[in-house]
Amino acid sequence: MNLLQNTLNDIKEINRDVMKEAQVVVDGLLKPVGSLGTLEDIAIQLSGIYGTNSLKPLKKAVVVCAGDHGIIEEGVTSAPQIVTTLMTNFIAEGKSGVGVISKTMGADVIVVDVGVNADIDNPKVLDKKIKRGTDNLAKGPAMSREEAIASLEVGIEVATNLIEQGYNILATGEMGIGNTTPSSAIIAAFTGINPKDLTGVGANLSEEGMIKKVKVIKSGLEVNKPDKNDAIDVLSKVGGLEIGAMAGVMLAGAAKKVPVLVDGFISTAAAAIAIHLEPKVFDYLICSHISAEKGAEIAASSLGFKPYLNMGLRLGEGSGAALTFTIIDSAIAMVNEMGTYAQAGISVV
Amino acid sequence: MNLLQNTLNDIKEINRDVMKEAQVVVDGLLKPVGSLGTLEDIAIQLSGIYGTNSLKPLKKAVVVCAGDHGIIEEGVTSAPQIVTTLMTNFIAEGKSGVGVISKTMGADVIVVDVGVNADIDNPKVLDKKIKRGTDNLAKGPAMSREEAIASLEVGIEVATNLIEQGYNILATGEMGIGNTTPSSAIIAAFTGINPKDLTGVGANLSEEGMIKKVKVIKSGLEVNKPDKNDAIDVLSKVGGLEIGAMAGVMLAGAAKKVPVLVDGFISTAAAAIAIHLEPKVFDYLICSHISAEKGAEIAASSLGFKPYLNMGLRLGEGSGAALTFTIIDSAIAMVNEMGTYAQAGISVV
Repeated sequence: MNLLQNTLNDIKEINRDVMKEAQVVVDGLLKPVGSLGTLEDIAIQLSGIYGTNSLKPLKKAVVVCAGDHGIIEEGVTSAPQIVTTLMTNFIAEGKSGVGVISKTMGADVIVVDVGVNADIDNPKVLDKKIKRGTDNLAKGPAMSREEAIASLEVGIEVATNLIEQGYNILATGEMGIGNTTPSSAIIAAFTGINPKDLTGVGANLSEEGMIKKVKVIKSGLEVNKPDKNDAIDVLSKVGGLEIGAMAGVMLAGAAKKVPVLVDGFISTAAAAIAIHLEPKVFDYLICSHISAEKGAEIAASSLGFKPYLNMGLRLGEGSGAALTFTIIDSAIAMVNEMGTYAQAGISVV
Repeated sequence: MNLLQNTLNDIKEINRDVMKEAQVVVDGLLKPVGSLGTLEDIAIQLSGIYGTNSLKPLKKAVVVCAGDHGIIEEGVTSAPQIVTTLMTNFIAEGKSGVGVISKTMGADVIVVDVGVNADIDNPKVLDKKIKRGTDNLAKGPAMSREEAIASLEVGIEVATNLIEQGYNILATGEMGIGNTTPSSAIIAAFTGINPKDLTGVGANLSEEGMIKKVKVIKSGLEVNKPDKNDAIDVLSKVGGLEIGAMAGVMLAGAAKKVPVLVDGFISTAAAAIAIHLEPKVFDYLICSHISAEKGAEIAASSLGFKPYLNMGLRLGEGSGAALTFTIIDSAIAMVNEMGTYAQAGISVV
């Protein structure tokens, strides 16, 4: 709890004075004012996060948090639980979607076992297991309050270590069969939106499975009555271990002034936890893409995110966030390398 | 005319048999079927274009075509015509938006003067000037039919040379003060859509300027009566020299089996010319981003494009297309480097 509380205490507003200066810099670049749209917004946000207009090249990592979910005993997934273990190992080998995309983008992938329901005996996977999967949230809390805090602290610890190693941008990814269910439950708990409108096919669930999934989420919310004003309560009752760790990565990023890319639906649910713990976190997050999972758009807009990549992705793993790393590189190149009106000796168009 | 006609004759259907094989390959990758969305679609399209599932690394170029527009004497732009010349030179120096983005993405930028209204005495700019700007399309044809064909052939020639040098993906960009006006006119001519719904602020035009711009486009369509069944007639009467050249790049890409990235609104207007000349071109084009220019979305959907990057860009130059090069790299990495269900010894999820 000390680590979590200290991290929350360390989170300060992004530097709005530097952002004002950054806006002037961006408006002085040789282009019609505002014509690079979101690329300009990202550059200005980065200046606010880093607290400087001297933007350095990015050293990038995707933190993939893995965990299992007791809820799968309700039949809300198309894949069996063992796939979490298989895929966690494959992701660590660099052979999964996020692996090949990250390699293309010049990013490293760090895999963390926060709660896989099996022994992951793999030196390439960080062993931070809190327990072997959550409990069935349809029948009671997914985990204890202490376990929820521990999951947040895993993410904080891993991210802080990476930042100390020189990584200056992180993306959040995940692997966990069943984890769209707690994600829907988290967004429903915070927003009051009907779980039906937040519940999608996950990894290719049947129509019948979907109906069951909505029922299970409603039941989880009724049984557990998560307190939307207490994000740790929401996380512990209807969340997931890897979701907590992803939220922890976001908290650490904010505390250490490092931007964190939000991936798809599950990552957005983690962002909801992080932002409800400390609203200042919002400004340290860059919401990259809008996933094809049904609740993604509602979840993103409920938090005020404006994702800019729309490729119908629903793989997870951080793959969508990883796809946007070079867009962030480009925002930095824009500020550092573009010519200016001043250099050209002409007035701003 | 021979070059144009020969190029049109050389354009064949993309290879749908290879695409079927590519679909099987993609479905065998270690991920839920379809979960990488548009990234999968791009990979399969690339296989169809190149005619093989052995996708090679990309050698990338952005072809930036520059030209001036007689229409600016009607007061439809916020910037003076001299900016075309200034920016053409800056783009060639690599200091503009497309330059720094392309550098980040590992792409070269080739600048072509197709019709700038000034002497561009710059060894870094290919001199393919057809004439010094188009004529005022509000009062008569923007150019002769011969000049329109010449503009298409400039694009074909430049793109063919690049492809012979080993470039295997091209993006289209442009520089031309006033060129959103002919772009709106082209789309209006082909679709019959009211120019008002296709006309935006360009490079920050005033409200008053906008009203004038719509009037000018309507007048251009009335005076010239472009024949929507004759794309060269549309190009010559209400188009632009650099727009013709961009369309030519697309035709050459299709003829030589190389994908061409469509940028924003002006590039989409060029795509309309190319597709109306030869509908098979469509399958060789990848429409990258949806620009903030008002008509962009309507224009893209009128052609059946589904752009996937939405960053409110409206700089032009090919900057938006360039931003998506590494997404195409990632689609290739997905096919070439991801693990398969077969390797993992598990059945498809």
